Amino acid sequence: MENFTHYIPTKIYFGKGEISALSDEFKQRARRILIVTGQGSVKKNGVFDDLMDQVKKAKIKFFEHSGIVPNPRLESVYEGIEIAKREAIDLVLAAGGGSVIDAAKAIAVGAKHDGDVWDFFERKAVPSSALDVGCVLTLAATGSEMNGNSVITKQDSQRKLALSTPLIRPVFSVLDPEYTFSVNSFHTAAGIADIMTHVFEQYFSYTEAADVQDRIAEALLKVCIDYGPVCCKEPKDYDARANILWAGTLALNGLIGEGKAGDWACHGIEHEISAIYDISHGAGLAIIVPNWMKHVLNNATRKKFVEYGINVWGIDKEKEDSSIAEDAIKKTREFFVSIGMPSSLTEVGVPQDKFKDMAKNAIRSYGQVGSFKKLTESDIVDILQRSV
Amino acid sequence: MENFTHYIPTKIYFGKGEISALSDEFKQRARRILIVTGQGSVKKNGVFDDLMDQVKKAKIKFFEHSGIVPNPRLESVYEGIEIAKREAIDLVLAAGGGSVIDAAKAIAVGAKHDGDVWDFFERKAVPSSALDVGCVLTLAATGSEMNGNSVITKQDSQRKLALSTPLIRPVFSVLDPEYTFSVNSFHTAAGIADIMTHVFEQYFSYTEAADVQDRIAEALLKVCIDYGPVCCKEPKDYDARANILWAGTLALNGLIGEGKAGDWACHGIEHEISAIYDISHGAGLAIIVPNWMKHVLNNATRKKFVEYGINVWGIDKEKEDSSIAEDAIKKTREFFVSIGMPSSLTEVGVPQDKFKDMAKNAIRSYGQVGSFKKLTESDIVDILQRSV
Repeated sequence: MENFTHYIPTKIYFGKGEISALSDEFKQRARRILIVTGQGSVKKNGVFDDLMDQVKKAKIKFFEHSGIVPNPRLESVYEGIEIAKREAIDLVLAAGGGSVIDAAKAIAVGAKHDGDVWDFFERKAVPSSALDVGCVLTLAATGSEMNGNSVITKQDSQRKLALSTPLIRPVFSVLDPEYTFSVNSFHTAAGIADIMTHVFEQYFSYTEAADVQDRIAEALLKVCIDYGPVCCKEPKDYDARANILWAGTLALNGLIGEGKAGDWACHGIEHEISAIYDISHGAGLAIIVPNWMKHVLNNATRKKFVEYGINVWGIDKEKEDSSIAEDAIKKTREFFVSIGMPSSLTEVGVPQDKFKDMAKNAIRSYGQVGSFKKLTESDIVDILQRSV
Repeated sequence: MENFTHYIPTKIYFGKGEISALSDEFKQRARRILIVTGQGSVKKNGVFDDLMDQVKKAKIKFFEHSGIVPNPRLESVYEGIEIAKREAIDLVLAAGGGSVIDAAKAIAVGAKHDGDVWDFFERKAVPSSALDVGCVLTLAATGSEMNGNSVITKQDSQRKLALSTPLIRPVFSVLDPEYTFSVNSFHTAAGIADIMTHVFEQYFSYTEAADVQDRIAEALLKVCIDYGPVCCKEPKDYDARANILWAGTLALNGLIGEGKAGDWACHGIEHEISAIYDISHGAGLAIIVPNWMKHVLNNATRKKFVEYGINVWGIDKEKEDSSIAEDAIKKTREFFVSIGMPSSLTEVGVPQDKFKDMAKNAIRSYGQVGSFKKLTESDIVDILQRSV
């Protein structure tokens, strides 16, 4: 295990009706808040009304910035920053899924900066302060509700980049499983693919003996496998939604990644695809992950796949290692397909002609793609070709 | 799953050499600190010297309160409070194991109180503020380094009571696995029994469908089973010590108990034993736990023991439920014995004559003992009798 600092001060209000905690949070922290929302679902499913009750109770002033889309755009971030600066906002409240939260975070850090917020994403500048961010989560997927990451897309240059800083870690997040009841089966499944991939990116690592982290990672994967299909079939099953929601948050709040090297190759590759083709991030990951697994499986990495197969999928440990590893990868693909995820780029309309550019861009964006196995441009092209 | 609030803002510096973070922590938080220590081990194993380097670097003033014993006494707490008040201390730093930390917490909350700190433990008063607490941990066991609990013994009345308040949750804790290298095999094993019992107290619950918590609980138990014996046999195995240390902290920081009812019967019973006989808390738990398991196993609770047997001990799920449950309890006892823990009260010199008083006191102290199965006085006497 490697050294690490564990510090996750986000306050989580978990469970039905927990939004009632917000009036006190507002009273303590804010007088003028900017509410950031997506394409209208929070207005239809009652979340926004519940939020308004809290705003009124706290007697604070609110402003609204709506219309954030999946793979959130830099333009919307600029618009939000303008409002935040003009209206002297002191807390940015995201009501929505990961895209809305990521936009809110970028607004929060941009509002305290005189230059271009995109410089932070391009690593040309380092942020030193940000407005407080709060969340009311409506989708189990990105884990953005309890971490300091934001992923924003600059459409004109087809770049999708991540900023990571504790300054934008939410100060509080409301996780009400009932707020995820109205998410349709496809987006629920894409969220689960995203959650599981977050776990894979941290689980498949060259760091030895980080067993606490790895056993917890397996715990979260088992929850996804047990409850993911239930959420897709029975969208109002409270316990299924609750377990997936909490697993999604813990999958990317630091807990399972601290003390070990992360890989993040699949995210690097998928970001290049969705930067150009605007496909669902989770669906893109469901396509890429099993092909990444096949590509990186070799004599050096097999041990970890065997551990994964036995501990997560319950494959008989008496079998041959190579068969356990291959079976584990097969089961991963089958699971994604079983919850309605696509298994090929062709299926989601992504052609082959830009694979080389994507590979180049991935390496340009991240410096290095993968650490469990470091990927070259031709490795990435191979993974994309396997995914056709 | 039940609703919960998750908020664990303790900053953990984990890994060898991480004590180097303390000079900055001191500079930010304190000018006059009270260092609380136990019976001298930190002076022998170099921890105190490392701490002094940080104190000097931060140029702060320090005072010392040493001699805290296992099952820490109220008298030592009073002495510490006197120093803290007299010297206008602003941070209480525990350097030691759970007993030292618990004493430091009681001092921190007592130093801001005009009345008797014991009133907080007897629930006659509720604390409203406390000095900051910081830790340098030297024993994997109680989890006190990341929670708001303190357990103190008032010897003249043979009472051992717990206070639980976020006010005394440490603001930072240094967890350096090397600082646990010098713990002998018995105390290492007692710590592991304590950690595992913390998990059991939260895992065995009537709350249904808290799978995230339960799968993580199983993860921590597996780490204890895999690495506990290694720590006892190879005290300087860094990875084994690191995994046990981190598992011990996560076992009682809130993560696996939130969203579900806790049981805590074994702690309630053991506290009554060690309040009178001053035996090692972990050893007491290792004796009581398997007998508690046998006592509470019935048609209603069997399902949970089956889950435990299959998921933690890898017992074949094709076997009969009753055989899986009994086998799981047997394996629990065998494990404790294998790491050198006692299996009977006779072995540690506890006679039978006060069992009824202990049962009465347990119920007096906690109002209710157990929730997975609520225990009456005669249930507690039965568990104690089984433990002879």
